[in-house]
Amino acid sequence: MSLLVTGSIGLDRVETPFGVREDAIGGSAIYFSYVASFFTPVRLVGVVGEDCPKTLLDVFHGRPVDISGLEIRKGSKTFRWHGSYVQDMNAAQTLKTDLNVLAERPAAIPPAFLDSQYVFLANTHPVLQQQTLGMLKSPKLVVADTMNLWIQAERAELTKLLGKIHGLVLNDAEARMLTEKKNLISAARDVLKLGPKFVVVKKGEHGSLLVTDRDVFTLPAYPAEKVIDPTGAGDSFAGGMMGYLATQNCLSPATIKRALAFGTVVASYTIADFSLGALKNLTREQIDDRYQEFKGAMSF
Amino acid sequence: MSLLVTGSIGLDRVETPFGVREDAIGGSAIYFSYVASFFTPVRLVGVVGEDCPKTLLDVFHGRPVDISGLEIRKGSKTFRWHGSYVQDMNAAQTLKTDLNVLAERPAAIPPAFLDSQYVFLANTHPVLQQQTLGMLKSPKLVVADTMNLWIQAERAELTKLLGKIHGLVLNDAEARMLTEKKNLISAARDVLKLGPKFVVVKKGEHGSLLVTDRDVFTLPAYPAEKVIDPTGAGDSFAGGMMGYLATQNCLSPATIKRALAFGTVVASYTIADFSLGALKNLTREQIDDRYQEFKGAMSF
Repeated sequence: MSLLVTGSIGLDRVETPFGVREDAIGGSAIYFSYVASFFTPVRLVGVVGEDCPKTLLDVFHGRPVDISGLEIRKGSKTFRWHGSYVQDMNAAQTLKTDLNVLAERPAAIPPAFLDSQYVFLANTHPVLQQQTLGMLKSPKLVVADTMNLWIQAERAELTKLLGKIHGLVLNDAEARMLTEKKNLISAARDVLKLGPKFVVVKKGEHGSLLVTDRDVFTLPAYPAEKVIDPTGAGDSFAGGMMGYLATQNCLSPATIKRALAFGTVVASYTIADFSLGALKNLTREQIDDRYQEFKGAMSF
Repeated sequence: MSLLVTGSIGLDRVETPFGVREDAIGGSAIYFSYVASFFTPVRLVGVVGEDCPKTLLDVFHGRPVDISGLEIRKGSKTFRWHGSYVQDMNAAQTLKTDLNVLAERPAAIPPAFLDSQYVFLANTHPVLQQQTLGMLKSPKLVVADTMNLWIQAERAELTKLLGKIHGLVLNDAEARMLTEKKNLISAARDVLKLGPKFVVVKKGEHGSLLVTDRDVFTLPAYPAEKVIDPTGAGDSFAGGMMGYLATQNCLSPATIKRALAFGTVVASYTIADFSLGALKNLTREQIDDRYQEFKGAMSF
């Protein structure tokens, strides 16, 4: 089924104990789309400035990612993020953010994308997330991400958004900030009261947590020994999760669990190299093999 | 099969966001024994001072814990620990430690205990751990715990101990300190080079990790919403793990995995109340039910 993602596209400067990368292609929509495209065709909506290298347009070459919603805006500059994992591989330290074109109007959604059934609203201003959502005809599953900035500065709009979506994906610190609950299950239950049918809490190297009205499902991260650059792990997780869900005509707890496991597995590839490096030669078969291996290693 | 534990017995003052408990019975050997006794008879070796309340002797009433190795030493004072989880429920802040009787000679091992097959050397000076081990006739499985203090101050003796045991249980910070590796799997692999056949890394609310020559097994914590006092969670985990192993005439990877899962489940009870409060009315049937529930919640 059609999977739409709107989110950031950026040029990253990333420092980890294993080196530094300049002008690396990044942003939530990039990681999400690349990973989700192993499962299903993806419709990407996003905007960059005219400074963005041509190679950006080539990144999805050979992959089923429809980039007709990718706007290259004249006179604008691409979003840039400078982060470091030198102190802590599990938490990015943001050294600099230049919103640039992300502070302007969002990219338009191509008319051909308006019938999208599966929608991922990657982290951006909750008013924009609501606007995007308002334009879609009859989405079947809408999942959003958010961040500390909106929780603090735009709580009212974020709360409105939560009343309109099926699932929320956020990290542990954000879940605690949003609900002022320290226990993540309690925090997730509080989020459910605001509207979503399920909440996925991403805990980085500690895995993830799925909470619904009836269920709590906890999943460790894939035990990765090779961690070079964690950038994009959360967006890859979401991409794997939504990509898998878009292939299933079912939103049962068991299906969502499997989706989380696929998200976990693909994220384990993303972090094995800088930027999209480890994804470029990845195949769906490798993902499925590691999924089976993970499933086996988890069973007792 | 016979399971022997040597470790600390103490009186704790514990502060958590849910209250304060004074003179609560605690210590590694207490939690370990209580929990392990749901699986198999336990032989406890430890020492307290004459200030220890009589109620201590009653704590194992009705449980298959042989306390003939429990020495009440005249003229000595019981070990005391004062810790707080007010800042962080996942990491105890030690406010005060009075070693008292633990700084003296260890308790003697009763002759009837010397044929013990399963042995847990809870955290203490690695020279004492080696002495205890040296007295045992032919233990089948020896697992030890340790702590930052010995890693820093007694590395040579700890390394000697590691050459003599089958398994090591330690927490994430200790694994990193011992090996100077940040990645926990790499850290565990380095520990394996020192002798043990398996290493279990306890990650508190983030679960545990089992690493052997051939296998990496990762397990989340039981998704506990009620966390009142985390004291003893790690020792309970070890107690459940060793208690289960002592009932199995097998040390296959699959058996050890199940043992970790039982350890995870019993620890989830321990943390639901102060001291041994949540364990007092616990039954093996409840443990088995939660084990099945956990297993189900983990499968995808």
